[in-house]
Parts: sequence; structure tokens; C-alpha cells
Amino acid sequence: MSRPALVLFDVNETLSDLNGLRGRFEEVGASGDHVGLWLASTLRDGFALTATGAYADFRTVGREALRAQLAQIEALQRDPDDAAIHILAGLGQLDVHPDVAPSMRRFAGAEVRMATLSVGPAENAAKLLDRAELGDLVERHFSVDEVGRWKPAPDPYRHAARECGVALDRCVLLAVHPWDIHGAKRAGLRAGWVNRGGREYPEFFERADAESDSLSGLAEAFVGEQ
Amino acid sequence: MSRPALVLFDVNETLSDLNGLRGRFEEVGASGDHVGLWLASTLRDGFALTATGAYADFRTVGREALRAQLAQIEALQRDPDDAAIHILAGLGQLDVHPDVAPSMRRFAGAEVRMATLSVGPAENAAKLLDRAELGDLVERHFSVDEVGRWKPAPDPYRHAARECGVALDRCVLLAVHPWDIHGAKRAGLRAGWVNRGGREYPEFFERADAESDSLSGLAEAFVGEQ
Repeated sequence: MSRPALVLFDVNETLSDLNGLRGRFEEVGASGDHVGLWLASTLRDGFALTATGAYADFRTVGREALRAQLAQIEALQRDPDDAAIHILAGLGQLDVHPDVAPSMRRFAGAEVRMATLSVGPAENAAKLLDRAELGDLVERHFSVDEVGRWKPAPDPYRHAARECGVALDRCVLLAVHPWDIHGAKRAGLRAGWVNRGGREYPEFFERADAESDSLSGLAEAFVGEQ
Repeated sequence: MSRPALVLFDVNETLSDLNGLRGRFEEVGASGDHVGLWLASTLRDGFALTATGAYADFRTVGREALRAQLAQIEALQRDPDDAAIHILAGLGQLDVHPDVAPSMRRFAGAEVRMATLSVGPAENAAKLLDRAELGDLVERHFSVDEVGRWKPAPDPYRHAARECGVALDRCVLLAVHPWDIHGAKRAGLRAGWVNRGGREYPEFFERADAESDSLSGLAEAFVGEQ
């Protein structure tokens, strides 16, 4: 495989560990298992907007999905609006997965440029990597806000490549979600799938160029062993 | 409001009560609460395909979403593939909500034509209404299969109106999901929102022309009281 010129890291669940929100759900009287439904519902509604040529940002869609979800919970110990604000504040305090630092250091050692590309706010990605002392390795944080269309539509991927002045096929997206791999591939980029949970790849999505159980394994796949 | 010529009923959760799947989740060792995550994940992936101009049918996407979800459950008492098959077989045995029959009879009494429009298979909708002895009131069951693009893209709504020979603004979609209302409105139809749970309507989706806590309330709104 030819070495990429630019690696785009997805953010939610690829870099950040959303299990960090579980405690905040529990603090308002809800099970930590609600994290999964909240993210799936938020993405569902964001993608619905994209499929109809409309747009609202992640904060807006995520807050509404969470409020609707919390309002169904009888044991909730706070007003759903307040509970949603409390939980979403946790997005600014997440940790990165342990495979993030070795992966980014490997790409940096191979002089491959790096950026992030998120459906969420750019500042959350910036703060996440600053807390992990990795901020200096990443040249830019892209959000779908810049194009007004959520991934997996092609626009956000192509915008990031264009802004960095890199040909599409020299860009690689690394992501944990198959729908994101699919979007990058359809847009003309290459992609690496982080399969931390050992799941099967859905047959109906475009396949990644490389797969590993860790981001560091993907760094090896794209730039070779150290 | 001018009387509609054609009413399109959404199927999953609008006509059918997906709580009927809870027992099947429990039979394989999973909590019945997984129903919500399964549907949200299925829609997320179907909408992701639509946002990239790709397609796979509801059975395929739903089975894969369910298998991935079940594979994460440690207490699962069956192989995830077998468990998914067992649960999805329940889609063919659901009941309609109690407000469906009075709503359809009211529209029929006002000589308004009726059809269903689902992201799922047309035969599931047909069997659902036959079991409820309402099949004779509905002239056709539309599935997104016919256009190869999931709602809320405009194609399925416009296809149904065109096939029935009815102008877009004389068609009304009735649905429980705000993303579906949004899609119908963006496509040029009218829409009625069934808000059985008393939730707030998301500000970022196009609003319905009428709202009620029941399908029978929506029949009153669109054709007047009996």
C-alpha cells in the first residue's frame, strides 16, 4: 500500500471513549447503557437531515435526542432538560482510548500529516487531544459544521482533503464506525477500520483498505512497522 | 384544511407496536429494552446508505444491526445469528396500536384513499393489517424497495403519490417519527404527527400540518369530526 499523505481521525468513539458518559447518566438516575441509544438516535436524526439536504449541528441534534430519550425514563431524578445538559457537559471531559497515542506517534514518526474529522464540534476534538498531550501532532480539527452536511455524505471528507491540499486517494480516514468507512470510500478516500470489539463488517457498506483491533495496528498497516 | 385524497400510513411503530418484540429479546437472554437501540441503529445505517446514494433493504440492514448488538451481550443464551433470526421473525406477528382501526374507518367513511409506506417489506405491512382485519381498507403497500432509497429521502414519498395518481399536496403522511414527517414535508406532501408519548417536536425538522396523541385524532384533524 502506498503511504498516505494525510490521516483523518474520526473523533466520537474512534479517539474518545464514550463510556466516560456512563457515570453522568447514572448521576441523573438513568442506566449507563443509555449511551449507545443516545449516539445511535443522534446519528439517525443527523443522517435524516443530510438525506433531505437539511442541516442542524451535533449539539442541537444530540441535545434533542437525549431529552426525548430521558423523558421516557420513569426513574429520572431531574428534569429532562437539566439532565441532558449535565450529561452532554461530559463530552468536554472524555479520555482518549489507549491506542491513540502510539498510533499518532507512529504516523508522526513517518512524517504523515494528521487532522481530525468529526460530526461534532471541532473544539471538543481539540480539547480531547490537548488533554492527552497529543494536540501538537494534529494540524487541524474539521467539523461537518464547515460544510453543513453530516458524514457519511461525501462533502465533509472531500472538504478536509481539499483544505489540506492533498489528493483524495492520498488521504486515509481511520474510524470505528462502518458507516464512516463507507462514506470515506464512496467519497474517494482510503480508509482503515478500527474493530476493537471483534465484530463482523456489514456486507452492505464499502469495505476498508485495512482493518485492525487497534489504531496502532492501523498505523502499522499504512506506514509499515517501525 | 382541505381534505386529502390519499393518506399514507407509516408502518413501524406508527401502525405496529414494536413492544411485541420485547418478549423475543427476553427469550434469547437479552433485555426487552434493546428494541429501541435496534431500531435506531437500523435506521442510522439505512439513512447512511441513502446519504451516500447506496441501498440495502430493511431485512439486510436490520439483521446486521441486530447481530452486532446481540454479540455485545454477555448473557446471551444463543448464537447471535440464531438469536437475530428468532427476534426478527417476530416482525411478522406484531399487533396494531388500538387507535389504528378507528382512524382507518374514519378515513374510509370520508372516502379518503389509504396506502402504507414503509422502510420495511410490503408483505409485513399487508399481513399486519390483514391480522387486524383492516386489509380491505388499504389499496396498496409501498416499500422503499421500489425506489431503492430509504425514507426520509424524497423519492419514496413522491413515488407513492405518483403511483396512486394523486398530487403531492393532496397526499398526507401519518407517522410517529419526526424524521418521517420532515421527509414527507420536504418532498411536498402534507403530514400528521402521531405523538403518543407526549414528546416535544425537534426544532430542526419540518413541522407537521397536524398533531394528535392518536391516529384517530389525526383522522378528525384531516377529515373533520364524524
